[in-house]
Amino acid sequence: MTTPLAAKIARDYGTPALVIDMDRVERNIARIQAACEAAGVANRPHIKTHKSPMLAKMQIAAGARGITCQKLGEAEVMAEAGIDDILISYNLLGDEKMARLGALQAKANVTVVADNSVVVAGLPKAAAQSGREVCVAVECDTGRKRAGVETPAEAIALAREIAATKGLSFAGFMLYPTESGWLEAQKFYDEALAGVRAAGLEPTLVSTGGSPNMKNVGKLKGATEHRPGTYIYNDRMQVAAGVAGWDDCALTVYATVVSRAGPDRGILDAGSKTLTSDTGGGLEGHGLILEHPEARIARFAEEHGFLDLTRSNTRPSVGDVVRIVPNHVCVVVNMVDEVVMVRGDEIVGTLPVAARGRLR
Amino acid sequence: MTTPLAAKIARDYGTPALVIDMDRVERNIARIQAACEAAGVANRPHIKTHKSPMLAKMQIAAGARGITCQKLGEAEVMAEAGIDDILISYNLLGDEKMARLGALQAKANVTVVADNSVVVAGLPKAAAQSGREVCVAVECDTGRKRAGVETPAEAIALAREIAATKGLSFAGFMLYPTESGWLEAQKFYDEALAGVRAAGLEPTLVSTGGSPNMKNVGKLKGATEHRPGTYIYNDRMQVAAGVAGWDDCALTVYATVVSRAGPDRGILDAGSKTLTSDTGGGLEGHGLILEHPEARIARFAEEHGFLDLTRSNTRPSVGDVVRIVPNHVCVVVNMVDEVVMVRGDEIVGTLPVAARGRLR
Repeated sequence: MTTPLAAKIARDYGTPALVIDMDRVERNIARIQAACEAAGVANRPHIKTHKSPMLAKMQIAAGARGITCQKLGEAEVMAEAGIDDILISYNLLGDEKMARLGALQAKANVTVVADNSVVVAGLPKAAAQSGREVCVAVECDTGRKRAGVETPAEAIALAREIAATKGLSFAGFMLYPTESGWLEAQKFYDEALAGVRAAGLEPTLVSTGGSPNMKNVGKLKGATEHRPGTYIYNDRMQVAAGVAGWDDCALTVYATVVSRAGPDRGILDAGSKTLTSDTGGGLEGHGLILEHPEARIARFAEEHGFLDLTRSNTRPSVGDVVRIVPNHVCVVVNMVDEVVMVRGDEIVGTLPVAARGRLR
Repeated sequence: MTTPLAAKIARDYGTPALVIDMDRVERNIARIQAACEAAGVANRPHIKTHKSPMLAKMQIAAGARGITCQKLGEAEVMAEAGIDDILISYNLLGDEKMARLGALQAKANVTVVADNSVVVAGLPKAAAQSGREVCVAVECDTGRKRAGVETPAEAIALAREIAATKGLSFAGFMLYPTESGWLEAQKFYDEALAGVRAAGLEPTLVSTGGSPNMKNVGKLKGATEHRPGTYIYNDRMQVAAGVAGWDDCALTVYATVVSRAGPDRGILDAGSKTLTSDTGGGLEGHGLILEHPEARIARFAEEHGFLDLTRSNTRPSVGDVVRIVPNHVCVVVNMVDEVVMVRGDEIVGTLPVAARGRLR
């Protein structure tokens, strides 16, 4: 079964195609903005999900304070488009990046993060180039074992180091609590706050993170802002985390059944070069097919999605165009140079994924 | 420890960066060309690995008969660059693709494949547009359970259907035997061949596939050509398959250690948006770090590679630039718009990944 819209998408663009429903995008933007406001924190959406200046501007127009970027290259694209309040939530290192950071400071108000002294020692080179202080927040590891200082004592020491370094100013703390770790995060933050205050410093930015953490937004006493990303599109992970429903999933991948090759099998023209091998933290299968929810996208070749239809009562035919909610939308968007925008059953146009592949 | 070349790459391009050693690329091209010639089959390299017309032309200059593309969009890029013998090893469906295939036929000699009647029924639309017959090979499933007709009887029936369809001509058979399944493939092919001959048809193209299958190249009696792809760069999968050594790996990902965050841990600036979540068929870890082979790239966030250093005697420092042999190079190349070319310790320039993201 191919919906009328799917037939139009296939006719005008071919498959596989990434399609975003702008009505849902706008609803998601409004809903999370309202949730942040109700929780008393600013919204600083993470643009790594959509990588589009137009969508970032829609988020800001809806009330977001600014944006979050994971990579300097993303921030450059956003600043070029006129966005002027950017948090780069990533340790930046090396002369090449310092020169670019200095240039970026001429275009936007930028805050960066650091979790170690090597990063702090490098940042003054950007300040020397721009003639502006670099605002630096301390990234704190509150349980994810990703980046971040591991103890309040380290956070305090690094904050003091930042404040004592010519060309840098201490901005505050960036945290990314685990979904069950908000009490620990509070303890970490309270200790770090007391320590920096004892050193005469005051954080102006206290940032918490994550769309799956929307259910905890505002829980950290002292937080000034939250950094949700995935909420603009949502995906199977968000639904599994209980922060979105299927009707909140604004992006679907349209793919064609190109082969059946056996009664219990089928092949989609979307493989790991479209949907990616990201399991979404261990979800079963590589996406949900809306037309055949019992079908399983069992595995991938680069351009083949292998359908297991053994549990499926309805079987697609060769030529059917189906819609797939991906496991993890952020990595899927990053595969394509543009997405197709629709409203209801109408195609609106295409939107460049302008910061696609800006991995440095 | 950062090598002098790695320091230069970081200074000139920043990290993460994909770097190809052109001496190794040339050696790999020559070695596989010689192996095909020794086995008495033509070489039709699969360009899905490099997606670069320049490298495709180097393969042809070394003696390759033509190229293989997985997607129509890849073939369009290659034909635009002047390559004129192209096998598209994929079922093509839908009016949008038929119009493009017709246009492509004006620029290059194209052969496509089909494994079902729906695909065969659609292809005459391309012929009607181009005024040229479309050459169609029957894709046969010889054990991989991907696309392909499952029995010789189906192959014969589809070949007859192709030959009987106005605008189409029967080209032959495309097979992709499993590494241990060459006897079965031979049996399949022999039966199919006898069947089409009985119908007055003669295959001109009998194509086997895969770089891991280079150890079996020429084994199928009757094969006219082989379609190796990954061999131009190689990767951990190829080494694990026993068809390449580490010195044959021509592409490495240069990444910076941006955080240590604990004595047994570390963070690379290359995550799933650079190295992808492809496990390379179940390899342990997400790539081999040449400077720290005992270190494990244990998991990913989108822009973070999580290092597990518990088994590693040597520990990288923040700021170190390391080189990673990826699990599956074909999907990693597809993440970037360009790669950096080097010879020995010298940077030669950059090479566009011209067909990157051409997924339709």
